[in-house]
Amino acid sequence: MSQSPDRQNPDRQNPGSRSPDRAAIRAAAARIAPFTRRTPVLRLDGAELGLASGPLALKLELLQVSGSFKARGACNAMLAAPLPPAGIIAASGGNHGAAVAYAARALGVPAEIFVPKITGAAKRARIESYGARLVVGGASYDEARQASEARAAETGARLIHAYDQPEVLAGQGTVALEFEAEAPELQHILVAVGGGGLIGGMAGWYAEGGAQLIAVEPEGCPTLHAALQAGRPVPAPVGGVAADSLGARQVGGLMFPLARDHVAQAVLVPDEAIRAAQHLLWDRLRLVAEPGGATALAALLCGAFRAAPGARIGVLLCGGNTEPGSVT
Amino acid sequence: MSQSPDRQNPDRQNPGSRSPDRAAIRAAAARIAPFTRRTPVLRLDGAELGLASGPLALKLELLQVSGSFKARGACNAMLAAPLPPAGIIAASGGNHGAAVAYAARALGVPAEIFVPKITGAAKRARIESYGARLVVGGASYDEARQASEARAAETGARLIHAYDQPEVLAGQGTVALEFEAEAPELQHILVAVGGGGLIGGMAGWYAEGGAQLIAVEPEGCPTLHAALQAGRPVPAPVGGVAADSLGARQVGGLMFPLARDHVAQAVLVPDEAIRAAQHLLWDRLRLVAEPGGATALAALLCGAFRAAPGARIGVLLCGGNTEPGSVT
Repeated sequence: MSQSPDRQNPDRQNPGSRSPDRAAIRAAAARIAPFTRRTPVLRLDGAELGLASGPLALKLELLQVSGSFKARGACNAMLAAPLPPAGIIAASGGNHGAAVAYAARALGVPAEIFVPKITGAAKRARIESYGARLVVGGASYDEARQASEARAAETGARLIHAYDQPEVLAGQGTVALEFEAEAPELQHILVAVGGGGLIGGMAGWYAEGGAQLIAVEPEGCPTLHAALQAGRPVPAPVGGVAADSLGARQVGGLMFPLARDHVAQAVLVPDEAIRAAQHLLWDRLRLVAEPGGATALAALLCGAFRAAPGARIGVLLCGGNTEPGSVT
Repeated sequence: MSQSPDRQNPDRQNPGSRSPDRAAIRAAAARIAPFTRRTPVLRLDGAELGLASGPLALKLELLQVSGSFKARGACNAMLAAPLPPAGIIAASGGNHGAAVAYAARALGVPAEIFVPKITGAAKRARIESYGARLVVGGASYDEARQASEARAAETGARLIHAYDQPEVLAGQGTVALEFEAEAPELQHILVAVGGGGLIGGMAGWYAEGGAQLIAVEPEGCPTLHAALQAGRPVPAPVGGVAADSLGARQVGGLMFPLARDHVAQAVLVPDEAIRAAQHLLWDRLRLVAEPGGATALAALLCGAFRAAPGARIGVLLCGGNTEPGSVT
């Protein structure tokens, strides 16, 4: 998919482009504002987390409606054009499904959400709490995606892709608009990567200047690493503690050129660092992050990302859909 | 104590006064800034919590160092004058003890913290994590306080009172300074009351104009209600789910005239509303509040406080020292 001409030569000046630019992201921000939260930024010194002393800004996107950043992209995709009476369908490790279910309830349309068996209880409960029909099946996100596509062909419902859709990327990009407004001084922003919709949308924003983006992936789900090595999105292993949020089979075709051109560095972190980051967020900040939501911070803890002394670092804490007792 | 002349006629224009004014609170804010966090404000619509639609601003003070607002007052009291080599002593339901232990570690002095038997595991662990000596004894905060006073007389350590000390009130008042800077439009701010140091300090700030303060107490610990009824601080029952943070025996003599003159309304909430508020904060916001930290919000849930339609309401979420699994 990344070889198609419109993606090789995205026209970033055109809001109709498939790669989000700042204009498209601003339009998304205006569209989703009534349905999403402007999440706050918490400023710390790195020493408070046992890291090198220096300014650290955490964007608390785990406080977003539906429990993760995914609400931004889902709302933008569902608001960008009228929805069919059959409603919407999505496949998800859980967070996108919760976001779509949330938006469907807000917009008064039916939703069917397909999740793999690895999706945890907190995410399943959240999806059902919004009144969506939950379908559990398949070992991975990719199998759930195939089932959702077959079902959409039957019912005529619109598929809302978890990451590889222009409106989804533009929606996720709104988190960068906010982060820059709150913390324009940042030099590096660490972002977890699964299918890459979040960092892709943020890259659309920061492509025009500002902070450098640092992609952080679990060793068990190295989709962006595999893509950067191959020069295009390719399948990668799916495993580890963050698989239910970062376990896409490969990064999206839309995000790949954005990541290739506008992500400064991509690093891998072991599961132990992710668990340690979850524990630290609870112990020092009283924040509950799911494994995928703590993955970006894990890169600072384990040294996978090292900045110059005193560098101004931002970390996106992107999701909190887990059992709260799991973080102690 | 409330009958002493300096408390009957506080000179609020004088920073040396025993009642904090804005100058004393600004001085405290400058003093404690290197040791505390400026906690963020999350803006919502009331409808997101199932309440009447209208702007709602939550100050996330449960993300404060040591897990509650108490760090503000403890740091200010300990920084205001040199500490004796014997260090410091405090009695606490847990949060003040954690705050004092945190500050003692930061300042390099020894700390002994006395807590009653009702103090939960999360608070005990937090106190010990800062390297303080923890002494558990007595059925209530008041018994722990008596033990701490006897011990301080023996060792020469300085007692840091949990609420009834001018520097403690001025420190707690810094949360009002921040809340007003972040959300100057607020008309009502709901604040939980135990010994009253928090609302007393905030009343010192808002005495000079701005939002109305609404005091919220659990039915099981009605210290301010009892004091307002009697016209002075008097002993009140101590019980219910929030007793380990709001279970002072009576409000402080310093806070009482401030509350009497500058708190617009005082309301009571049942334990069920407090538990419901904890659950709602987790379910809708992915925030873990301890019972005392959710008490202010409980007043909106159960209707103990009702504002005019569209009123701009602030809620202080003041502490998160609990087992995270307890909120689901």
